[in-house]
Amino acid sequence: MLRREEQHVVVLGGGFAGLAAARVLGRRGRGRVRVTLVDRQNHHLFQPLLYQVATAALAAPDIAAPIRKLVRRYPNTTVLMAEVTSIDRAARKVLLDGGGIASRELTYDHLVVATGMRNSYFGRPEWEQHAPGLKTLGEALEIRNRILRAFEAAELEADTDKRRELTTFVIVGAGPTGVELAGAIAEIAGRTLARDFRRFDPTTARVILLEGGDRILPSFTPDLSEKALTSMKRLGVDVRLGARVTDVTAESVSVGSDVIRTRTVLWAAGLSASGLTKDLGVELDRAGRVKITKDLSIPGDPRVYVVGDLISAEQDGKPLPGVAQVAMQSGRLAAENILASMSGATREPFRYVDKGSMATIGRAKAIADVNGRRFAGFFAWLLWLFIHVLFLVDFRNRLAVLFEWAWAYLTWQRSSRVILEAPTSPAATDAR
Amino acid sequence: MLRREEQHVVVLGGGFAGLAAARVLGRRGRGRVRVTLVDRQNHHLFQPLLYQVATAALAAPDIAAPIRKLVRRYPNTTVLMAEVTSIDRAARKVLLDGGGIASRELTYDHLVVATGMRNSYFGRPEWEQHAPGLKTLGEALEIRNRILRAFEAAELEADTDKRRELTTFVIVGAGPTGVELAGAIAEIAGRTLARDFRRFDPTTARVILLEGGDRILPSFTPDLSEKALTSMKRLGVDVRLGARVTDVTAESVSVGSDVIRTRTVLWAAGLSASGLTKDLGVELDRAGRVKITKDLSIPGDPRVYVVGDLISAEQDGKPLPGVAQVAMQSGRLAAENILASMSGATREPFRYVDKGSMATIGRAKAIADVNGRRFAGFFAWLLWLFIHVLFLVDFRNRLAVLFEWAWAYLTWQRSSRVILEAPTSPAATDAR
Repeated sequence: MLRREEQHVVVLGGGFAGLAAARVLGRRGRGRVRVTLVDRQNHHLFQPLLYQVATAALAAPDIAAPIRKLVRRYPNTTVLMAEVTSIDRAARKVLLDGGGIASRELTYDHLVVATGMRNSYFGRPEWEQHAPGLKTLGEALEIRNRILRAFEAAELEADTDKRRELTTFVIVGAGPTGVELAGAIAEIAGRTLARDFRRFDPTTARVILLEGGDRILPSFTPDLSEKALTSMKRLGVDVRLGARVTDVTAESVSVGSDVIRTRTVLWAAGLSASGLTKDLGVELDRAGRVKITKDLSIPGDPRVYVVGDLISAEQDGKPLPGVAQVAMQSGRLAAENILASMSGATREPFRYVDKGSMATIGRAKAIADVNGRRFAGFFAWLLWLFIHVLFLVDFRNRLAVLFEWAWAYLTWQRSSRVILEAPTSPAATDAR
Repeated sequence: MLRREEQHVVVLGGGFAGLAAARVLGRRGRGRVRVTLVDRQNHHLFQPLLYQVATAALAAPDIAAPIRKLVRRYPNTTVLMAEVTSIDRAARKVLLDGGGIASRELTYDHLVVATGMRNSYFGRPEWEQHAPGLKTLGEALEIRNRILRAFEAAELEADTDKRRELTTFVIVGAGPTGVELAGAIAEIAGRTLARDFRRFDPTTARVILLEGGDRILPSFTPDLSEKALTSMKRLGVDVRLGARVTDVTAESVSVGSDVIRTRTVLWAAGLSASGLTKDLGVELDRAGRVKITKDLSIPGDPRVYVVGDLISAEQDGKPLPGVAQVAMQSGRLAAENILASMSGATREPFRYVDKGSMATIGRAKAIADVNGRRFAGFFAWLLWLFIHVLFLVDFRNRLAVLFEWAWAYLTWQRSSRVILEAPTSPAATDAR
């Protein structure tokens, strides 16, 4: 199968970065490289809309597309669904575990590491069970279940204090994810569920947004943060700045001596790099990200590239942000640099072109910063909507999501108000 | 709250039967009864389309609607999401468990038991872990995961025999669910995934449908069974009649001395009544269903009604089938009889009006039997489509499902090819 001149590129991760790399190699590397794309999931996830799955506005399949479908037309590309257990740079090998059904090792000529970030709890991993983060569809469904179950339990609960705990929602971290979750939960309590309960009034539910810094959405300019804050307050969200969480239990969140009684805590406060970066044996930053060279390869090994959120680098004195645009641009460049090095051409340095950033701040409202031009309100939301629908990978998803949004906008309803039981029973897991 | 003349009706189960009963009581019982509807799920499920969620054609929320939204407009109706742990007829009480968060007991004046059926394994409960059935959304997602994971594992597997096992799918039971699953899996292997793998050819996958009786779809007339069989064969399904399963393990299904090596077994062979029927203390049939009186109450207790699939009764010498029409008609009549008995009117006997039955037998094909007029093929499928979309409870669901079907029909794609991890981690379960 393997022709003499063909080299093997292994891409780890099918997110924005890995997929972008694989597509360049599939399109332009035919006859020169064969590509193996490995991901632990079978789907590419459109993470910017994950909070909408968590808040019952979209169904899980709306924002996910099978990775193998996305690269189907490239005959030089193989997709494997497996967990990467380790990278052995000395032997140029990657070890995979296919969930106990099959395992495999891959030998690479070039490696692209694009495994992204995971939730991080400030060195307090025991908080995770009480405060799920939002990185995967599984986590989004877990958060959806917790929100909907809390309201269900409140209807069943006779004790007023306990009901108060059940209808108190705490979101830790006021970056885009935290703000988007808080706004959506406030809308669910205030409108979607308003007439659905008999024993309590859902509009009395409390949504508390905790932020350790001095403003929300700190990656935006202060004036946009201010507008977002006004929006959050108008939605009824209790925003607390300078609030550093000191403890999380099954029934409370502590901010210093202030104890908030709650049964639902959502984590949007911190991320750290996937553990694989340690295998590379190069310098990492505190979050575990990799200090790359200019062409995105790692110091001392021009065959290994690190892309996407895993990049630790500065540009114009500021650290590169963990956003989809950095991921896509770096993934593409890594692939181009692989092809360049094979043909003896010069490898290009990475330069991120910032096309703007945006975040929704409640129903039909957003903030946007595009080339220094700043927008807030309905127009920014239209822009947000247009861009997000445009970048949804699959044509069918685009139509489905637009349809869901139009419906939700007109009716205030959320079409995915479904509590899903765990699909994988323990017994079933054993069997596989 | 409770006015003197108001009586309390407790409805157990929010399926077709329970929902129909609650709606009649909500619409016509205002001022006379207050209603509490209890279900362990937060959603009413459109079970006839559950196989489409299991085979990645629809997303879970497409066929589920929140129960409280469906009865929102009836102020006399309260919905509780809880597990019914027991019925105490002597004390006229029902005990509920809200998943450890809250629990509650309800005292009733009238009780409607509509808790339906669950999977049954011919007295071999240990088979369940290897062969999931299809009664809930959680089970549908588990089946979807198993089908998609089997193909993923086959791509990872180097050993030809093991790959053969991974791409062998066995469905036990050739009623409508079994036939629909078999047809859909054959289509997935033969068309949807045909170009998505590099190490094996998905069109070589085997789909084996095992039926203990002498024809498939035994609830239909023999000529329709015959047409369905032809359709199944044309799709490449290996139908084996008179095949009684004698063992199921993680890696095989046995039919007598014939051992089929497979990693994916789906169960569509048997159902038994929810365990609550035992608490009623009246005569049950072998499947645990209740031998009701003519007006749907149980012998000796006119305040307790049993409706839907739980009914064990004959009409015109044939047992009542476990179909949606029986459920809806019996649910409605039980509610009407409660209101009749309160106003001193006569309680009506139950008489099922058969509006016909149908099943899909592959892409754009179905069989239908409507008032003795029998159809097979494309026209029957159009009829099936029309009726199923019409009966989807929620208007939004109808549009969404039609859209998904149109898309799938044109592209052969299935829009929900997403393997979802268990949303509820063990840690999370402990925490709640």
